[in-house]
Amino acid sequence: MPPGKLRDNRYGKSGIRLFKVDREGARHHVTDLTVDIWLEGAFEAAHTEGENAAVLPTDTMRGTVYAFARERWSPEPEAFGLELARHFVETVASVERASVHLAAAAWERIDVGGDGHDHAFTGGAPARRTATVTVGPDGADVTAGLGDLLVLKTARSGFSGFHVDAYTTLAETDDRVLATLVTARWRYDALALDWSACAGEVRRLLLETFAEHDSESLQHTLYAMGQAVLAARGEIAEIWLSMPNQHHNLVDLQPYGLENPNEVFVVADRPFGVIEATLARDA
Amino acid sequence: MPPGKLRDNRYGKSGIRLFKVDREGARHHVTDLTVDIWLEGAFEAAHTEGENAAVLPTDTMRGTVYAFARERWSPEPEAFGLELARHFVETVASVERASVHLAAAAWERIDVGGDGHDHAFTGGAPARRTATVTVGPDGADVTAGLGDLLVLKTARSGFSGFHVDAYTTLAETDDRVLATLVTARWRYDALALDWSACAGEVRRLLLETFAEHDSESLQHTLYAMGQAVLAARGEIAEIWLSMPNQHHNLVDLQPYGLENPNEVFVVADRPFGVIEATLARDA
Amino acid sequence: MPPGKLRDNRYGKSGIRLFKVDREGARHHVTDLTVDIWLEGAFEAAHTEGENAAVLPTDTMRGTVYAFARERWSPEPEAFGLELARHFVETVASVERASVHLAAAAWERIDVGGDGHDHAFTGGAPARRTATVTVGPDGADVTAGLGDLLVLKTARSGFSGFHVDAYTTLAETDDRVLATLVTARWRYDALALDWSACAGEVRRLLLETFAEHDSESLQHTLYAMGQAVLAARGEIAEIWLSMPNQHHNLVDLQPYGLENPNEVFVVADRPFGVIEATLARDA
Amino acid sequence: MPPGKLRDNRYGKSGIRLFKVDREGARHHVTDLTVDIWLEGAFEAAHTEGENAAVLPTDTMRGTVYAFARERWSPEPEAFGLELARHFVETVASVERASVHLAAAAWERIDVGGDGHDHAFTGGAPARRTATVTVGPDGADVTAGLGDLLVLKTARSGFSGFHVDAYTTLAETDDRVLATLVTARWRYDALALDWSACAGEVRRLLLETFAEHDSESLQHTLYAMGQAVLAARGEIAEIWLSMPNQHHNLVDLQPYGLENPNEVFVVADRPFGVIEATLARDA
Repeated sequence: MPPGKLRDNRYGKSGIRLFKVDREGARHHVTDLTVDIWLEGAFEAAHTEGENAAVLPTDTMRGTVYAFARERWSPEPEAFGLELARHFVETVASVERASVHLAAAAWERIDVGGDGHDHAFTGGAPARRTATVTVGPDGADVTAGLGDLLVLKTARSGFSGFHVDAYTTLAETDDRVLATLVTARWRYDALALDWSACAGEVRRLLLETFAEHDSESLQHTLYAMGQAVLAARGEIAEIWLSMPNQHHNLVDLQPYGLENPNEVFVVADRPFGVIEATLARDA
Repeated sequence: MPPGKLRDNRYGKSGIRLFKVDREGARHHVTDLTVDIWLEGAFEAAHTEGENAAVLPTDTMRGTVYAFARERWSPEPEAFGLELARHFVETVASVERASVHLAAAAWERIDVGGDGHDHAFTGGAPARRTATVTVGPDGADVTAGLGDLLVLKTARSGFSGFHVDAYTTLAETDDRVLATLVTARWRYDALALDWSACAGEVRRLLLETFAEHDSESLQHTLYAMGQAVLAARGEIAEIWLSMPNQHHNLVDLQPYGLENPNEVFVVADRPFGVIEATLARDA
Repeated sequence: MPPGKLRDNRYGKSGIRLFKVDREGARHHVTDLTVDIWLEGAFEAAHTEGENAAVLPTDTMRGTVYAFARERWSPEPEAFGLELARHFVETVASVERASVHLAAAAWERIDVGGDGHDHAFTGGAPARRTATVTVGPDGADVTAGLGDLLVLKTARSGFSGFHVDAYTTLAETDDRVLATLVTARWRYDALALDWSACAGEVRRLLLETFAEHDSESLQHTLYAMGQAVLAARGEIAEIWLSMPNQHHNLVDLQPYGLENPNEVFVVADRPFGVIEATLARDA
Repeated sequence: MPPGKLRDNRYGKSGIRLFKVDREGARHHVTDLTVDIWLEGAFEAAHTEGENAAVLPTDTMRGTVYAFARERWSPEPEAFGLELARHFVETVASVERASVHLAAAAWERIDVGGDGHDHAFTGGAPARRTATVTVGPDGADVTAGLGDLLVLKTARSGFSGFHVDAYTTLAETDDRVLATLVTARWRYDALALDWSACAGEVRRLLLETFAEHDSESLQHTLYAMGQAVLAARGEIAEIWLSMPNQHHNLVDLQPYGLENPNEVFVVADRPFGVIEATLARDA
């Protein structure tokens, strides 16, 4: 009799790279997704007995993504994710819950003579859009997000009045550079929406609120950004924000006989502050 | 009245790089840690009002790590983490829960003439040791782990009898290369132990079980590895294992008029299989 | 008498992270540079004798960058690099040649209500601008560049008529997806220019030529891009381009009973093609 | 007439991942290589005319590596690289020079009951072995190397007596932590050797010399390491070493009322010192 009991097991396929071209005459549209799939269900015998009859191979998950890109395609990550997650739950008896995560790389048309080119694109932009779709016994759940949204402000940001103890060396400031790499994820309470329009609005609200806020701390600004999204988008039930503090430290130029009136900063990679919170609509 | 309610907020400092030298005469001992700290507690006013009185600056967390490396040092990550986590909960009124994660880089003595050198080391070895210590209202919790333990076997591994559907292309095999990057985390039901000895034993058990197992799947091997740890180490309450499948695919050499009797493989970076499970001691 | 002779030695500082704020009233301008410095000169005694009198510490190079950001600042990387490189050659007797490399991260104003914000920025854009300035016995040399310019086209690209041997399996195609991450470096034959305007024009020329070219290979397109730059910008003496081929391979959907009319592609990380060339103005 | 002339063009394939199993009865031997190939030759028409007849597709280079892993295999990277480089120069008329770079990942047998296991391995060790073989009009050239050899010493290292100017803030020290990530490449003046034995000896000499040296600077230690290799291995004509300075800075504990007797250090990621040199046998 083995001493342990299997709990919380899941498996899947990560890093499926799908590039899709949709043609509207000479005008081409491209979608670039990295797809991760996780399944939960009745997989105990695979662990305990080495019996694989209930196991959908991860290679089949990969194949399903490519086949669905032709058969049941939607360029909206949320909609394509719903197709995939429902398929696994509905057609594989052992699967109780399927979670599909999709990250979309941004490609923009190359500007030629003032117009976006029909079939040439430039990419690599940050702030990529993400979606996570989960289908389980309680139905479907769609969470969208933005990753790698790098923002910075050089005014209207301070940090003071904090707790002081024997290990405090930080000085209070009412004028610092505030920089963070925003990751956002928000859960919808709907399963059909104009997903792209909504994601675009959330992005705009996050950026504008960051720019316009009088910040007493990253927590303070994070909270304002979350509230702005919930206030404007009734279809969003909750939003999670991660906003690590990328410290820009004032350089001491006194050894060189120079003043530094908030002009010259060193950017520190590590350590960095970490701040996370969820704001949920008050029901 | 804002539409959302703050939930699940936490903050801290990540990537604190500490290098410590302990001297025993001419014999030097080195510890190389990367420390992450997360706090939870009564921080709502910082978010809602921009009021920072309850906030311990993340810069102070950094300072505390360096001061404690001199004042309250232990080269065991678990013990040093307990000192830090308890300090934050016990001395900062707003802190309800503190979680300290420590990752130790491995440095080994350079071998000179058959002996380990007194003060020269070589590093960068994988399979680094980790510890996560959490102190909260319900007491303390110590979880240890190993990261980046890369293992591979070229015999006694197959995968067959799996679920087949319209998207299946994978062939069954009773002889494949099995490779995975093991991450393990195990929770102790004790707060004082010979932490290093136990971590070393877990590492040995994981490696030996991986080597000796007749594998029907990564799930099958993961389960055997977890059971081996629970069977041998009564102080461990549960173990979580992540073992992504780093596919080694047989190369088709037929276009070149050659056979490939399980000799030549291409290593795929993406996509890769993902397998995770927790085994908990049956109470 | 040691068996070897010292040759080709150099040293310096890498990864100096400088963030500079310039204020024009309420309107802030930001520059984000990563600076690398290399020195060559009369440093033999440091190697052979452990005699450091001729050695400018790399820590001093770091300090000089921050002091010059206040004392002798230019937001143009080429001009700031010239200040730094000349300083080391002119003031440190042992230095014969100084090379300064600067990579500028792109920050754009956050758009609020149709206007670029005064002091809030979004960053992380690819295609960052670089400059390498070398000052030595033969004078100064300025090379500018672009890094990480990711481009892709879904039409007007083929690859056929290539050399075939016993190890060929690639099929000819007159319609493929062509994707590459362009790195460009071009050498000026001037030491004073509107550096930003010129770099912007080179970027535009590279993008437009990539978009409009009927490509028979990446070599073919690289050459056209280089010629376009040399034709339009007389101040550029030569241009080096690196354009690795990021393969987008058509997925075989036949196992699923589906056609794939150039729609569904898998993006391969490795291996990837590599193509590099220099085009020099014919003198 | 285009303004530029093609110069210094080359192309190839990078990141070919080969895993090879050699069997000696139940005892398996594994080799894990990442191969990069560069060709130079008569490829001008591909650039200027889009004429590909002289171009060996990079996909064929990939296929050749896998076929040769079966047909003309050697587990020594230097020997396998010579087979590949000679093949391209000898069989493809347009190829004038072929350069093959091979990096070998280290896999060690898992220890089970004191013995190395027959077919189970653990990997990820740093200090991987590299080889670069070039075959051209002047014959063949074999360069071997080590990458990512991380070393550190906590005694017998200082830095003092350096050049001081207005931008100097660094203090002199006769006791610092010295850490560096050694990359080494050495050129042989032979085409047949016991390559593995020689690489192992170079590794040992580099480590021992680093450990035993009384270091006045990284330059000083680099030079001693290079001389030790040239003194012991007559088949090596020259050696290039890169030894970036991974700064371990003493933490100022005075704000916390503590001394720091060379015990507590912060490890800085950036900026870092860079030091490179070549030592060539005095002929």
